[in-house]
Amino acid sequence: MKQNFRTKLSTLVQIALIVCLASPLLLLAEEGMWTFNHFPSQTVASRYSFAPTQQWLDHVRLSSLRVAEGCSASFISPHGLVMTNHHCVLECVQQLSTAGQNFVQDGFIAQTPAEERKCPVFELDQLIKISDVTAEVQGAIAGKTGAPAVAALHAKEAELEKSCGSDPATLCQVVSLYEGGIYDLYRYRKYTDVRLVFAPEMSVAQFGGDPDNFNFPRFDFDIGLVRVYEDGHPISSPDYLKWSANGSQSGELVFVSGNPGGTSRQLTTAQLGFERDTALPSLIPAISERRGLLERFITENPDRAREGDEALFFDENTYKVLFGREQALLDPDFFNTKIQEEQHLRSAVDADPKLADDRSAWNEIAQIQKTRAKDFDETFATGMFRYSDLLGVAVTLVRSADQRILPNDQRLPAYTDQALAAIQRDLAAPVPVFKDLETMQLRWILSEARRQLGVEDPLVVKMLGKESPEQLADRLVSGTHLDEAGVREQLYNGGESAIQASTDPLIVFARGIEPELLGFVKQSEAQIDAPTRAAAQRIANARFAIYGTSVYPDATFTLRLSYGSVKGFSDARGQLVSPYTTIAGLFQRATGAPPFKLPASWIGAKDSLNLSTPMNLCTTNDIIGGNSGSPLINKNGDIVGLIFDGNIYSIGGDYGYDAVKNRAVAVDSRALLEGLSKVYHLTRIVDEIQSARP
Amino acid sequence: MKQNFRTKLSTLVQIALIVCLASPLLLLAEEGMWTFNHFPSQTVASRYSFAPTQQWLDHVRLSSLRVAEGCSASFISPHGLVMTNHHCVLECVQQLSTAGQNFVQDGFIAQTPAEERKCPVFELDQLIKISDVTAEVQGAIAGKTGAPAVAALHAKEAELEKSCGSDPATLCQVVSLYEGGIYDLYRYRKYTDVRLVFAPEMSVAQFGGDPDNFNFPRFDFDIGLVRVYEDGHPISSPDYLKWSANGSQSGELVFVSGNPGGTSRQLTTAQLGFERDTALPSLIPAISERRGLLERFITENPDRAREGDEALFFDENTYKVLFGREQALLDPDFFNTKIQEEQHLRSAVDADPKLADDRSAWNEIAQIQKTRAKDFDETFATGMFRYSDLLGVAVTLVRSADQRILPNDQRLPAYTDQALAAIQRDLAAPVPVFKDLETMQLRWILSEARRQLGVEDPLVVKMLGKESPEQLADRLVSGTHLDEAGVREQLYNGGESAIQASTDPLIVFARGIEPELLGFVKQSEAQIDAPTRAAAQRIANARFAIYGTSVYPDATFTLRLSYGSVKGFSDARGQLVSPYTTIAGLFQRATGAPPFKLPASWIGAKDSLNLSTPMNLCTTNDIIGGNSGSPLINKNGDIVGLIFDGNIYSIGGDYGYDAVKNRAVAVDSRALLEGLSKVYHLTRIVDEIQSARP
Repeated sequence: MKQNFRTKLSTLVQIALIVCLASPLLLLAEEGMWTFNHFPSQTVASRYSFAPTQQWLDHVRLSSLRVAEGCSASFISPHGLVMTNHHCVLECVQQLSTAGQNFVQDGFIAQTPAEERKCPVFELDQLIKISDVTAEVQGAIAGKTGAPAVAALHAKEAELEKSCGSDPATLCQVVSLYEGGIYDLYRYRKYTDVRLVFAPEMSVAQFGGDPDNFNFPRFDFDIGLVRVYEDGHPISSPDYLKWSANGSQSGELVFVSGNPGGTSRQLTTAQLGFERDTALPSLIPAISERRGLLERFITENPDRAREGDEALFFDENTYKVLFGREQALLDPDFFNTKIQEEQHLRSAVDADPKLADDRSAWNEIAQIQKTRAKDFDETFATGMFRYSDLLGVAVTLVRSADQRILPNDQRLPAYTDQALAAIQRDLAAPVPVFKDLETMQLRWILSEARRQLGVEDPLVVKMLGKESPEQLADRLVSGTHLDEAGVREQLYNGGESAIQASTDPLIVFARGIEPELLGFVKQSEAQIDAPTRAAAQRIANARFAIYGTSVYPDATFTLRLSYGSVKGFSDARGQLVSPYTTIAGLFQRATGAPPFKLPASWIGAKDSLNLSTPMNLCTTNDIIGGNSGSPLINKNGDIVGLIFDGNIYSIGGDYGYDAVKNRAVAVDSRALLEGLSKVYHLTRIVDEIQSARP
Repeated sequence: MKQNFRTKLSTLVQIALIVCLASPLLLLAEEGMWTFNHFPSQTVASRYSFAPTQQWLDHVRLSSLRVAEGCSASFISPHGLVMTNHHCVLECVQQLSTAGQNFVQDGFIAQTPAEERKCPVFELDQLIKISDVTAEVQGAIAGKTGAPAVAALHAKEAELEKSCGSDPATLCQVVSLYEGGIYDLYRYRKYTDVRLVFAPEMSVAQFGGDPDNFNFPRFDFDIGLVRVYEDGHPISSPDYLKWSANGSQSGELVFVSGNPGGTSRQLTTAQLGFERDTALPSLIPAISERRGLLERFITENPDRAREGDEALFFDENTYKVLFGREQALLDPDFFNTKIQEEQHLRSAVDADPKLADDRSAWNEIAQIQKTRAKDFDETFATGMFRYSDLLGVAVTLVRSADQRILPNDQRLPAYTDQALAAIQRDLAAPVPVFKDLETMQLRWILSEARRQLGVEDPLVVKMLGKESPEQLADRLVSGTHLDEAGVREQLYNGGESAIQASTDPLIVFARGIEPELLGFVKQSEAQIDAPTRAAAQRIANARFAIYGTSVYPDATFTLRLSYGSVKGFSDARGQLVSPYTTIAGLFQRATGAPPFKLPASWIGAKDSLNLSTPMNLCTTNDIIGGNSGSPLINKNGDIVGLIFDGNIYSIGGDYGYDAVKNRAVAVDSRALLEGLSKVYHLTRIVDEIQSARP
């Protein structure tokens, strides 16, 4: 990918620095994932003659939701109706399916309120309030380094989060922005009784499948509808987004309110070099191998699609994302731009005596990358453990039993009282576990660990003993009862004595390697995470001193607002791609063979559809993974689309935004209504949406 | 990997260049894969007080063999007995196996001469003569560029190869050394009646499997024995290597005579950048995905191990090789050294008015990399076609029918008269084809093509039509009869009319896309290969003018001799690794679980074995893939080992040799005899080897 914009930017930075070192960094075009409390309304006004008011921002914020599993969503009616993507409710759809009733393939329609079905695990978070706690957090860690700094940070975070509300429906999180430059306390209203209302057939939700993923032109009906309940009834939600009467048009100003999961735009070049030279070259082939395993796992027995489809989708998507990032970092022009940006900032720091203490931070981070490289094999091998649900459960049970004995403020961040509540809930959820899939994953995880660490590595020797990865995985998975929610609950409630007494082979296994795993977690925290945080905070300090909050912080899977416009782009062959596709195009692209096979519902409804209805559209909004399911809204705050993807050039957006080619991709609001009413005849829902129109 | 040696080298180059631009490039330690007609005997003498004589060189050359499929070998008795690696005869072992008789798993032992069994496809080449044809070839292409230069080169090569011998047992190849700096005509004696004598169980031949591959310490019994026949009888081979009486010892001078497949040490930095940034990042994940497919293919049905094991072994090995290369190129120190070396050569060229014409060659090659990057998706997608045997057969049949109509000197290089003889023989060979494996491969190839080229690409649209990759692959493989040798022969013999009349679905498919494929081959030749060759030749000219033949040419899968010594190294943790392992170590490493499960034969023989016998050893010889099966010999020309691998640091050897860590890995000659006699009781073969002792 080209990073033309970045090249321009760095020149401008240079000029800005020459003229006045303290002047704000000039951002071009629509770059930026802005927090709601520092949104650049005046910049928007100067370009589009419209400035979001505080009231507008509050309304949009309260109408927006975060899907805890990693997506975004919004209220679209006063009765708790929530819109997100199909791929964001897929896990729920899969969990509600049975061998006899495949909702992934056939879709799910609750024709009556009584048919709306609770998702086993689904949490929606509504951002109620943002409070600045920078002074308190920075005060708590001031003067400390190493383990004491970590402990102080965790203690202060735990204290702030606990003091913020003890109501089980309240979730509080200390959010570190600008890598420690600002600490904000985010208070959420948490909804956990979430029921599935509608999911189309996966074949039209993800029409074009992996080949079309991250591409545009696009033709997906990627919507999922759920409803929030409390005490057995739909909630009343005063804040919700209305449906635009007329949709959008080319060039129009549009906003995306959602939760970009993470970006790495403020990493130092040493950190980016680590990603390019060490992390990505190992991670990408591992994901590719797992993809091959899953493909064949499903091919050998198509009944297993229900078990393996979600994991396969995840791998296909991850592959494109990681590959796109690697390509961006391997582009010498792009990387040189990052080097230049860093040099400009460092020159400014060097020129300012007040920032003298911050000058060494870049070199410290560069040094830490050597430790990361040395530890990488172990980080990588143990990081892969998360690909087995059952192993994850076993490690969580063993570790949480140990951690709960400690006072709240001395625990690992993932085991605070608040985090334990979520752990307990997840463990008790009746989620189906597919043992043959689990066996395959665990075989792969153990093989991967031996490959990465070597045959003679102590952890490998301890894990495998005289067994092969295949033998061990087969024995652990076939013998465990951790697939039963009751067993998990019992072990959790029984605490340390229950864990010590357990003869479940996976618990025995996890117990055996816990000293090594915990040691490695603590070592990483002390030698890598903590010193990185400390150095990054000094860089953030310096950045503030020079640019202020005129730049946006890296994404943190918290609510952000981006602005942009409906706009096409030039593809790799230099052809201009129009910003809209149509329903007619969907039918033209269909071949009858997956993933270009339309479901019977759409084929049957074709004659009744207005084929010129816009199907998907693309915009210049700056988004990234986590924004899936975000509402695309106009200046009235009304819905004109549903974000579900970016084009191929958006992937490098992890490290920088390319205004020329980077595009967000959404389902058009007009296609959504056309499909819901004419294909799925979901009259009660269409009426609910329509009655909420402005 | 570190390239300490290269760093030193470049400093020395710099000094050498300052002192005298025309002085030979100083090579340190044992770097070099030398041709037999330019072997640096005097350098060896100055370091080891031993200079190979012409007679010594001729004897070793004539005792050495090339396995056409990509390995090396040697005659080890006067009766045509040939030693190579197990993994070099694996395909034969697999082809001779049946559902009821699994020689891969159980090993193969011909207890009597009558039990020696012909390998369906196995060619051994003995290098008889090397003639310098540089003047003729360079004369033929002088003053020509583009397509006419290509045509002239091919015509001259075809003419020289044809004039060299029409005997079916003679194979002649024009070998381009120093990227066109020297053209030599290599005349081989070709042996095609090759019979399997011995193959151990794969579990001990590749003990440690993928986890231990490219590692040392090592414990493999990686030997395969075959015998060359003519007219139904073993040949008499006056040139063969005798078995050393006492093996080797630490520090001893040793030679490797074999056929390194290819190195890229003389590529320009622009070409290396293309490998690093474009080729490897796509190739590695593709191989990884196929590996996952194959692993699961075999896991689902262990009976399929016979079908898929070889492909899986290939992928695992390829992955490590490509990953190692990528790591070398991503190492900034290594890459900077390559840049410096290039700068030194270019400075010398700039300083020499006689070389003025060569100065632009580097920039031309850099420009060509842009074309390569633009064409990469198509190169990659069509390159993957080779992973389906049946598709390969179909394309070969279609193309050879067209090519045979043309005069010999106007054909593509792969379809000259000489090449066609090999094609015809391969097509007629009764090689088993596994249709379920083929279906899987073809599904993957077609998916990969669509993924790489995009849904709307004309070739993809032409290939798939309204079918999915899965549907198309299933239809083509289930309907084809190209798995029957008789059908292949008939179609080949029938020529163009038979191809045009065929309704075999794979022939119809290959016929349909042949215009695009052929067009792409010709376009690549004209826009990439030919201009690269032309520019590389000018660089080679310049290199000669400055360094002469004091440096060795890149490997070309032709016979080379390397010298070195038995020597350990320091591993990643700084531990010194001894150059020898023992048979005792083999038993200690065994766990009972694959790939560390010893076969019953070894377990049963344990008490009779001398456990302190050296098992494997490592040496400083500069080798690379293709050297597998090479004899490791002492200064008397006697066998002290059998090369089968390199350590992990040897992989970056594609681009440069690291004297500190790069090691060749061999089976010790003493372990070979111990195993053959005490584990396999192959008395007649042991006697044959022993009677050939000095």
